[in-house]
Amino acid sequence: MVLTKQNSIKKIEMGTIVTPAGFYAAGMHTGVKRKRNDLGLIYCDVPASAAALYTLNAIQAAPLHVTKESIAEEGKLQAVIVNSGNANACTGAQGEADAYTMRRATARELSVPEHTVAVSSTGIIGLDMPMDKIIPNIEHLTLSSDANDAAAFSESILTTDTGPKATCYQAEIDGETITMGGSAKGSGMIEPNMGTMLAYLTTDAAIEPDMLHHALKEATDKTFNCITIDGDTSTNDMVLTMASGKAENETLTPDHKDWPIFVELLEATCEDLAKMIARDGEGATKLIEVAVTGAKDNDEAVKVAKTVVGSPLVKTAVYGSDPNWGRIIAAIGRSGATVDPTAIETSIGSVKLLVNGQPVAFSEEAVSEYMLNDNVLISIDLNVGDGSGKAWGCDLTYDYVRINASYRT
Amino acid sequence: MVLTKQNSIKKIEMGTIVTPAGFYAAGMHTGVKRKRNDLGLIYCDVPASAAALYTLNAIQAAPLHVTKESIAEEGKLQAVIVNSGNANACTGAQGEADAYTMRRATARELSVPEHTVAVSSTGIIGLDMPMDKIIPNIEHLTLSSDANDAAAFSESILTTDTGPKATCYQAEIDGETITMGGSAKGSGMIEPNMGTMLAYLTTDAAIEPDMLHHALKEATDKTFNCITIDGDTSTNDMVLTMASGKAENETLTPDHKDWPIFVELLEATCEDLAKMIARDGEGATKLIEVAVTGAKDNDEAVKVAKTVVGSPLVKTAVYGSDPNWGRIIAAIGRSGATVDPTAIETSIGSVKLLVNGQPVAFSEEAVSEYMLNDNVLISIDLNVGDGSGKAWGCDLTYDYVRINASYRT
Repeated sequence: MVLTKQNSIKKIEMGTIVTPAGFYAAGMHTGVKRKRNDLGLIYCDVPASAAALYTLNAIQAAPLHVTKESIAEEGKLQAVIVNSGNANACTGAQGEADAYTMRRATARELSVPEHTVAVSSTGIIGLDMPMDKIIPNIEHLTLSSDANDAAAFSESILTTDTGPKATCYQAEIDGETITMGGSAKGSGMIEPNMGTMLAYLTTDAAIEPDMLHHALKEATDKTFNCITIDGDTSTNDMVLTMASGKAENETLTPDHKDWPIFVELLEATCEDLAKMIARDGEGATKLIEVAVTGAKDNDEAVKVAKTVVGSPLVKTAVYGSDPNWGRIIAAIGRSGATVDPTAIETSIGSVKLLVNGQPVAFSEEAVSEYMLNDNVLISIDLNVGDGSGKAWGCDLTYDYVRINASYRT
Repeated sequence: MVLTKQNSIKKIEMGTIVTPAGFYAAGMHTGVKRKRNDLGLIYCDVPASAAALYTLNAIQAAPLHVTKESIAEEGKLQAVIVNSGNANACTGAQGEADAYTMRRATARELSVPEHTVAVSSTGIIGLDMPMDKIIPNIEHLTLSSDANDAAAFSESILTTDTGPKATCYQAEIDGETITMGGSAKGSGMIEPNMGTMLAYLTTDAAIEPDMLHHALKEATDKTFNCITIDGDTSTNDMVLTMASGKAENETLTPDHKDWPIFVELLEATCEDLAKMIARDGEGATKLIEVAVTGAKDNDEAVKVAKTVVGSPLVKTAVYGSDPNWGRIIAAIGRSGATVDPTAIETSIGSVKLLVNGQPVAFSEEAVSEYMLNDNVLISIDLNVGDGSGKAWGCDLTYDYVRINASYRT
């Protein structure tokens, strides 16, 4: 499969989740969180093909059970109701009942079947849901396809994020313009293997639910599953996508000539959100990208990239703008990937630090200065095969400790 | 096997690695590190049965290769030469040659065969060894069986440790008093699966090398492999034990009636050092012990304990004395162990926070006050089986970030 990203996919700078045809959004403040919006809604004016991926944590919050049940019914959704501030996790039978109540109230307000509504929650675990704030306010959510309301939604899903995360891309498929928008939240508890944040993707492409699930899995493995903040994995999180079909392209399947373009569109949207999440890891000051080539295969490349970008010692070195390649090579060594210690090459930015597994002369000042940038690229060539892969993360800072030593107080 | 720890094993408060018969130690400052001792030596006046375990990192430093070669020769050691400040890792052919030179110089000075000398290094990776400081000083090491020289050795192996770590235990075997001493260093890059620190154990027990290896593996799996500081794994580290046989017990094998006592002696010594290492994790203010019961089996119990004690979110919550059981249960859920979300019980100290997977009323103030202690115990009952296990770690603090964002500068 040859992807020609430059030609076929373009970023829509002001685009949002309501840019694709058929989608509306809303967000408001109900008082669960102190200041920011804490209740959000996405609505599609037709039943949209839906697919979702969920946290791999064995303890899953009530809204995930309800959303799975909704999608299992016929693979279609018309709405997603999301609250932040309370995760509705470890809340037992009452939590399950509350998630169903949120679904039912939303379905009634929109006059759609209950099983076309998904439910999401994020926030503190183990507290009963503030239903007195959420339920009466569902009718006050004012849906529109205006960018302001998409922004209101994007704010409503945040927890310790410093700001909203939204993106939009377009591609031509069958001569039709296909648009895909995305909105996400991240911050703590972000670790490979998914589920571990909230991301909502909307598109006007025509595609069946099972094919959408297939494409979403593929894109997620290369994007959301390649970011790590702290190795923790939440009980709550999901990536959910809805396709309205309003672009009227021929229904997409892997046999469609433009299938690779659709996958690429989905990947571009997911990668952009994934990087925003990584950059906004709790307390982060920098986005770290680790690009691995020459691995035995792509899986091993990603394994090395994730291990390096997740290493607390690498993360603190990047925070300190310290070109400490010793920590990079130690992380490579413990990744479990096939390595030849005498063949590894490592660069930070464009400067080679390590050739044949041994340090070469370089200007520490120059590399350290490069590392003051917002984006720090670490490149690794293992020189044992043709596999390549990337992972994204952030530096580990005083603020990570401050935020997490006092999250509840 | 029934262990009666209270009766058979006793801690020797002032004991060290030179308390067992036959052992001598030395430590001195050569200028590789700024102030603290940086060159150390353990000597046994007879060829001692030897066994060692090494880091699982695929990139292993030169001294490990040399030590493996020494022990492989006939399973006997008379000396270990250790330097700190430079790890002699990623130093290529020159590094290998330097490790051999250290071995040769030590053997010559002690008039023992080269293959009875082990070599250890710890410190910065990728710099050439300061052989001009190390080699000429080997002859200035003054060995004795005095506690002061054991203390000088204990200091000589430290890197970012705040202080030395030494212990000593005794047991009766065959009516003979068997003594075991230990000295260790830890701090950063400490993670289960071994190798990831330096620990030297001396004993006057009579035991063959292969049996010693067997016992060491068993004890290490329950102690050193159950601590985690930051998930990173060093290229250098090892646990090494030497048995002089001077206690003149009947040679120990698993068929010996007192074999369990010997294993227990070894475990007690290793556990004490392991806890000291965990407590002295970089920037740590508290030792965290996680005790898991009711797991499917012991392996799963240890898996849960390690995941919880290694979670950055749990570590920061402990630092902030925040009884945030939501993070504990999230870590349990992602551990990969068999769990029933509705059966989990969790306590901090003696206070139950969670019963049947749901929070119970407790005094946050009281638990928070308990968490101001130096030792914080988190107990988890999974209620799905009979497995139990423990792990140890430390809190994640501003100082971890400070130390690691500026280690080299």
